[in-house]
Amino acid sequence: MKRYEALAEDIALSIRTGILKRGEKLPSVRQTSERRGISQATVYQAYYLLEARGLIRARERSGYYVIAGASKLPPEPELLSSTSGDSTTVDVSELIFEVLQSTKVRDVVPLGSAFPSPSLFPYDKLASSMHSSLQQLDPWATVEDLTTGSSELRRQIALRYLLVGMHVNPDDILITNGALEALNLALFAVTRPGDAVIIESPAFYGALQSLERMGLKAIEVATHPREGIDLDALESALGKHQPKACWLMTNFQNPLGCSMPDQKKQNLVALLERFQVPLIEDDVYAELYFSSHRPLPAKAFDQSGLVLHCSSFSKSLAPGFRIGWILGGRYLSKLIRQKLSSSLSASLPAQEAIAHYLSKGHYDNHLRRLRHTLSVQQSVYTEAIARYLPAGTLATRPSGGYVLWLELALHVDVLHLQKLAIALGISIAPGPMFSAQRQFRHCLRLNYGHPYSDKTAEAMQTLGRLIQQQSSITV
Amino acid sequence: MKRYEALAEDIALSIRTGILKRGEKLPSVRQTSERRGISQATVYQAYYLLEARGLIRARERSGYYVIAGASKLPPEPELLSSTSGDSTTVDVSELIFEVLQSTKVRDVVPLGSAFPSPSLFPYDKLASSMHSSLQQLDPWATVEDLTTGSSELRRQIALRYLLVGMHVNPDDILITNGALEALNLALFAVTRPGDAVIIESPAFYGALQSLERMGLKAIEVATHPREGIDLDALESALGKHQPKACWLMTNFQNPLGCSMPDQKKQNLVALLERFQVPLIEDDVYAELYFSSHRPLPAKAFDQSGLVLHCSSFSKSLAPGFRIGWILGGRYLSKLIRQKLSSSLSASLPAQEAIAHYLSKGHYDNHLRRLRHTLSVQQSVYTEAIARYLPAGTLATRPSGGYVLWLELALHVDVLHLQKLAIALGISIAPGPMFSAQRQFRHCLRLNYGHPYSDKTAEAMQTLGRLIQQQSSITV
Repeated sequence: MKRYEALAEDIALSIRTGILKRGEKLPSVRQTSERRGISQATVYQAYYLLEARGLIRARERSGYYVIAGASKLPPEPELLSSTSGDSTTVDVSELIFEVLQSTKVRDVVPLGSAFPSPSLFPYDKLASSMHSSLQQLDPWATVEDLTTGSSELRRQIALRYLLVGMHVNPDDILITNGALEALNLALFAVTRPGDAVIIESPAFYGALQSLERMGLKAIEVATHPREGIDLDALESALGKHQPKACWLMTNFQNPLGCSMPDQKKQNLVALLERFQVPLIEDDVYAELYFSSHRPLPAKAFDQSGLVLHCSSFSKSLAPGFRIGWILGGRYLSKLIRQKLSSSLSASLPAQEAIAHYLSKGHYDNHLRRLRHTLSVQQSVYTEAIARYLPAGTLATRPSGGYVLWLELALHVDVLHLQKLAIALGISIAPGPMFSAQRQFRHCLRLNYGHPYSDKTAEAMQTLGRLIQQQSSITV
Repeated sequence: MKRYEALAEDIALSIRTGILKRGEKLPSVRQTSERRGISQATVYQAYYLLEARGLIRARERSGYYVIAGASKLPPEPELLSSTSGDSTTVDVSELIFEVLQSTKVRDVVPLGSAFPSPSLFPYDKLASSMHSSLQQLDPWATVEDLTTGSSELRRQIALRYLLVGMHVNPDDILITNGALEALNLALFAVTRPGDAVIIESPAFYGALQSLERMGLKAIEVATHPREGIDLDALESALGKHQPKACWLMTNFQNPLGCSMPDQKKQNLVALLERFQVPLIEDDVYAELYFSSHRPLPAKAFDQSGLVLHCSSFSKSLAPGFRIGWILGGRYLSKLIRQKLSSSLSASLPAQEAIAHYLSKGHYDNHLRRLRHTLSVQQSVYTEAIARYLPAGTLATRPSGGYVLWLELALHVDVLHLQKLAIALGISIAPGPMFSAQRQFRHCLRLNYGHPYSDKTAEAMQTLGRLIQQQSSITV
């Protein structure tokens, strides 16, 4: 966390807990600067951030005033799921399909969406990059870079790993049609129909869809809402079943928002190494961290090529371009052959445009803005949860990404809630979407990647009312 | 065939058969115009075409002279393959992979390539279209057009079908990552591992790779080098096995270059209808016809949605963009769900660029040039076959596309030939690549989609020598 963010967090806490009250004046910038021994510029940055979060407002020639009342952040949930420990045949894709369709309508308040707001991405700059790169395109590249993907893009991706100290050879990268294809190629490479695969509980529904499509069984393993999959539970599942793969999101997991600490990632890799079970690592949110540095992937601790590490630009730079990649480890040549025979290659202009954009150094500036926006929006949405949803609602507080997880009172039926909400123009992502056993019937995933508007506030209020009504009827 | 093409063909025939001899002067443009009752412009066009084919040459202020000697076009092969009629487990992907790798090197003479010359495509115009379309892009389109694909592109594709009298609803089109993904989605939708699928003999190796990857069995059915799959043989295979699908290329088949006459396509659809076996139709070369009009797909005769019709822009407009589509018939909603869970969506900028390019009316001009180039190159390559390859070599004479099929003397081993050729910088596509039973060991596919240069002539000569040497050793 940067200095100004720490200061802002400090002041926000004072407001929430009621130490600073609505209408009160904040200490002046000069006073705060002197008292805390930090520059005035840093204090200004902190005040701007608090203003953006809707907690304080400047009055002309007077200073900054608190405009938000004391609020209690919703508490965080604890370890989730009491999974049966059995492997499960997967059959959830119709439910998932229905919910996804409901989020595609423009007028719906997209609390259930899987995507951040499309307005957050630099399509104009990407258009220029595309024009430049396509004009310079060597037509032979359409033949030479087939299947493995643009050599310049692979170099640029390798350079980004170097920033976190990982030495990746561009030749070890296979470009794919988004991370989803990468994950599916990985799953196909290490399993056969009927095999069992370990997933988180709750898990990204894309994993469930892939398992279902390929006739694989799911073993759901309890997952901590802050620190990711429970390693003890994982170890016992590895011993009990003979899974052929383990599919996890190590950073800003969808839907929980949890991240495994680095040491835990290292232990995870060591554990899987012991059982010789490959890890399919979905790391698509890694660039969307709110702290001071990008978290490492589990791949960073992989000595033997047992980790198939998948990522993409779809969440961080260019949704719709469908450019992802995989570091295939010991499975690379198998993956390349599969890619060749299943879809040949990823779209070349999209690859070249992103490579050009990265080579011009635009990416980090864009990411800084995007992360800041998302972190501010998380605060605003979290305050709205505290304000509008019934007391007792639990919410995760991810340190990156754009989704969080809500646990409602146990008797609430989110599948029913979803039907009521969509009829009123609000989409939500109900918990059972994220479980082969259709657990989490009282939970939902909330997307905070869209600007918080009056309409959003209204939707949150409506959602609160709908939940309240369910309580009154049921109790 | 246009009038000037008919005239050129006529004169070319006179040259080949020795009626017009090398060094002789052609009748003047005016004479020919008067004698044949056609405009001088038409005669000029014909002479230009003959000049481009290397058959005649203009001498300043003197007229046109024959520069090519009499040659005999290689004869066409007859009905191919004596398939065993059994279904076969497929295991050819390593051979295919090896051969494909060998064609990717820039300096190799690409007689074995699967692609036409990259220089034949309008990348500069596509770059402009991409710039325009991406700047006008509504970011919400990245969400709304997910999975099914750009609505404008689907409309443009539907308009092209309308040109041949087919009424296709844009909502019946699913955009895919090239035709290969479309074909794989189709195969996945109608089969399960262990099922048998009917393919042509020889077949597109992509079909073999897909069957192998999905654990399907191949039933190879004899295929006529001019008119496509043998319907009697097909009927008996349908009766004997219980195939779950039939995967065919109805126009300018790869590798033979054969096309089914319209009536035969209609009979094919009726036959499959009777057995209720879905047709997976690969129609990627349809736009590359040399005659006066685009041939119909079998889909045009499909009343009940039993045909899964796949095509793309990869061969005709934008290789590397990876934009294809499928008309899914009764399987559409299943295909959409599979696409959603396997790769989500095709690359949006590539889709928008192609839609923009089509909407500006550029496509037909480009196609006219492309078809003309390919048809001229076919003549030139065919003459080279007659000149450089041993007498007795048979060659198909496709009426479109950019590959033809060679049948060498029975004792020639093309797998051995391929190794010798690639060592000398020449790639070829050996027959066994196109057969689950590894038949056609004396056949090869020849790509005429690259400009015929001195280097090509040299390669053809070398190839002829290598074949001759095999004959002397073996005999």
